[in-house]
Amino acid sequence: MASTLDVEAKYDLITRRLQEVLGGDSIKAILAEGRPPKAYWGTAPTGRPHIGYFVALTKIADFLRAGVEVKILLADVHAFLDNLKAPLELVAHRTKYYEFILRTVFTSLGIPTSKLIFVQGSDYQLTREYNLDNYRLCATVTEHDAKKAGAEVVKQVESPLISGLLYPGLQALDEQYLGVDFQFGGVDQRKIFTFAELYLPRLGYAKRAHLMNPMVPGLMGGKMSSSDPDSKIDFLDPPEAVKRKIKKAFCEEGNITENGLLAFTKAVLIPISQLRIERRRGETGVDSEEGQGAIGDQSPFVDDDAPEGTVFTIRREGKFGGPPSHYKDYQELEDDFSAKKIHPGDLKTAVNKAIDSLLAPIRTAFAESPEWQKIEKLAYPDPNAKTEPKKKKEKVYHPPPPGKGKNAQVTTASAESSEPPPPISENAQPGAAGEL
Amino acid sequence: MASTLDVEAKYDLITRRLQEVLGGDSIKAILAEGRPPKAYWGTAPTGRPHIGYFVALTKIADFLRAGVEVKILLADVHAFLDNLKAPLELVAHRTKYYEFILRTVFTSLGIPTSKLIFVQGSDYQLTREYNLDNYRLCATVTEHDAKKAGAEVVKQVESPLISGLLYPGLQALDEQYLGVDFQFGGVDQRKIFTFAELYLPRLGYAKRAHLMNPMVPGLMGGKMSSSDPDSKIDFLDPPEAVKRKIKKAFCEEGNITENGLLAFTKAVLIPISQLRIERRRGETGVDSEEGQGAIGDQSPFVDDDAPEGTVFTIRREGKFGGPPSHYKDYQELEDDFSAKKIHPGDLKTAVNKAIDSLLAPIRTAFAESPEWQKIEKLAYPDPNAKTEPKKKKEKVYHPPPPGKGKNAQVTTASAESSEPPPPISENAQPGAAGEL
Repeated sequence: MASTLDVEAKYDLITRRLQEVLGGDSIKAILAEGRPPKAYWGTAPTGRPHIGYFVALTKIADFLRAGVEVKILLADVHAFLDNLKAPLELVAHRTKYYEFILRTVFTSLGIPTSKLIFVQGSDYQLTREYNLDNYRLCATVTEHDAKKAGAEVVKQVESPLISGLLYPGLQALDEQYLGVDFQFGGVDQRKIFTFAELYLPRLGYAKRAHLMNPMVPGLMGGKMSSSDPDSKIDFLDPPEAVKRKIKKAFCEEGNITENGLLAFTKAVLIPISQLRIERRRGETGVDSEEGQGAIGDQSPFVDDDAPEGTVFTIRREGKFGGPPSHYKDYQELEDDFSAKKIHPGDLKTAVNKAIDSLLAPIRTAFAESPEWQKIEKLAYPDPNAKTEPKKKKEKVYHPPPPGKGKNAQVTTASAESSEPPPPISENAQPGAAGEL
Repeated sequence: MASTLDVEAKYDLITRRLQEVLGGDSIKAILAEGRPPKAYWGTAPTGRPHIGYFVALTKIADFLRAGVEVKILLADVHAFLDNLKAPLELVAHRTKYYEFILRTVFTSLGIPTSKLIFVQGSDYQLTREYNLDNYRLCATVTEHDAKKAGAEVVKQVESPLISGLLYPGLQALDEQYLGVDFQFGGVDQRKIFTFAELYLPRLGYAKRAHLMNPMVPGLMGGKMSSSDPDSKIDFLDPPEAVKRKIKKAFCEEGNITENGLLAFTKAVLIPISQLRIERRRGETGVDSEEGQGAIGDQSPFVDDDAPEGTVFTIRREGKFGGPPSHYKDYQELEDDFSAKKIHPGDLKTAVNKAIDSLLAPIRTAFAESPEWQKIEKLAYPDPNAKTEPKKKKEKVYHPPPPGKGKNAQVTTASAESSEPPPPISENAQPGAAGEL
């Protein structure tokens, strides 16, 4: 049906599965005018993106299918600030790595990325205008309001840094400087979003709409830990690593509340399966090229002989075996799992197979791109690689006044790139994780 | 003796009458190398400068005489932020007005301004590098430290704004970006200065020296009030206004602790008188052109028949009359006043006469400069002038995204320039007042 999607259909596609929409009427009004809404989602390239990012990207696929012009903000300035140990050079490499991953994921989902625009924060966040606006905002926003806005997304520490108070304002300004109609993020961003709605108009700028994904727990269950490499699945993990990690994931029979596998199935696997089914039926988004150029197997996560309407199939094997279970929606699966009709082992096998099919084309694309491989090495240098003994290499940002230079302390940009990469963010929710 | 000033003589000139010097050894070292130290003093062009500014400028004259390269930072960005009601346009006019006043004052003191450099904050405070450093600093400085640093100079209010936390860091960065060896200010800046000494090295920048003037109470005694136009003497006040204001000034017989007139005599009149005496003796600073091109009467505030070594003369007239009192230093005057040997009326007359002689060349320069007069009108529009009824003139800083424009709130830059100027800072001490 491609370009024949009407306003209601587009709006439904944009807002489906979201937990909350603020300012939906303004999006409807834009759709009614016949022009594409503009949106942004931001992520700070601090650590290494894991497959939890599929949650946000699957939703962004909906936006693109509905004709939304999506900007992906790679918030390099924030990544640098979040982690002053990583010099800007390293952040620059990570920014490129993130772009490789994100583009490849969209391609693997068969989503044309013609309306997808990658923007680096440093492209505009260091300009005269932006900074003047930042100062204006700082002279308008109370410490109290800034602290409240950041309460859920700024790491709460005993001696809070000033930067924590700046983030909400900077994120508000991003909406203006990226020229968007709405911002998308996890519902943990709610206070940041309502802050933006309150303060942008005080600078004379328009209030934007805000679309929020539900929070999705980590796939592996429990707290992700940077000290446990098995607590997250990397986009480039080989099949045996994926298998090992899923095997270790917490998944208790009948327990549907603490179950990262079920949550991932709901937020990622079933939506992608549905997307593939819709596309097979010719129900693509507004872009008639949807699906063309897709890399990897585009089969839904459904057995060939499943009844019409099935979106997810779980085979039951071994001693708990039986005929496969076919589900028309997530709720049916959850009910079955809750009633212990599905054994954790079978759920794990089904999820493992689906994730394998999602990751295979990404691994292949990486294997075929020497450029991406090179960036990966630069972005995440091997902490065990033998390096020259640390040499303090002077890097002074500005020439100190004569006679002071010899006393000036120096930053050690070059030495640091041989240090181990900083720990991956502990935040399990990518809609939230890298937001700022 | 001009250029023959040795290291000790220069250092004494630089530091005389200061309350505190941090890092004096580094200045001595620079002098010993034979190169001119570089310094800055900052003022935010918020209100209208009053003659309290003579306090800082008199000290800066010492720096210039010792061969220091002085930068005067006209902190326009801060002025804009301190007072969001004044649009940048108005601040730009005030910045020009400040420069006119300050240059003219130096000329009237006979101080060659060849080593005096005027810098506007917006020249560098909105650049990419400065802002990246500001962000780095914000990710380094705790809220606690920033609050402590600003405790004496940032207005303490019930709901503090984020901007109050930024000021100390920005002022620290100014030292780096202005490339100076020391910063000069009132002793109320002490916490800001020690903050800079602590944090600049953490960014890899050199720690600077800090020279502090004592705090000088307002000339008029009591609290300066923006609602009382007679509480401050403007540089351009006509003689009758100066006379009226000094007549009203609080000056109690024998009271030397609450006495703005004595304080002004100590910090401004006697130093200027000394400068003029030294120059008459040929003891100019390192610049052999000192005194050339000076405008106005360059007589010291001393009677012609005063004994050698006199720096200030007070005539005693009327019913308390008697022979004039000649003082070799401020302490003698203070002792006499304390002992009620000098009547307040005679002190007022002497101060009035001295101030008249200081302001006459400035008034003349203003009267002879149509350009300055034009700027004065633009910088301080007459609040009583008949203006067109307020028209909200749209001035949107960035084009809002299509379809949002009609909802966008607007700033009203043009309308506001017809509003009364904001109240003059209540801070009586220019070394502190405009600092940030």
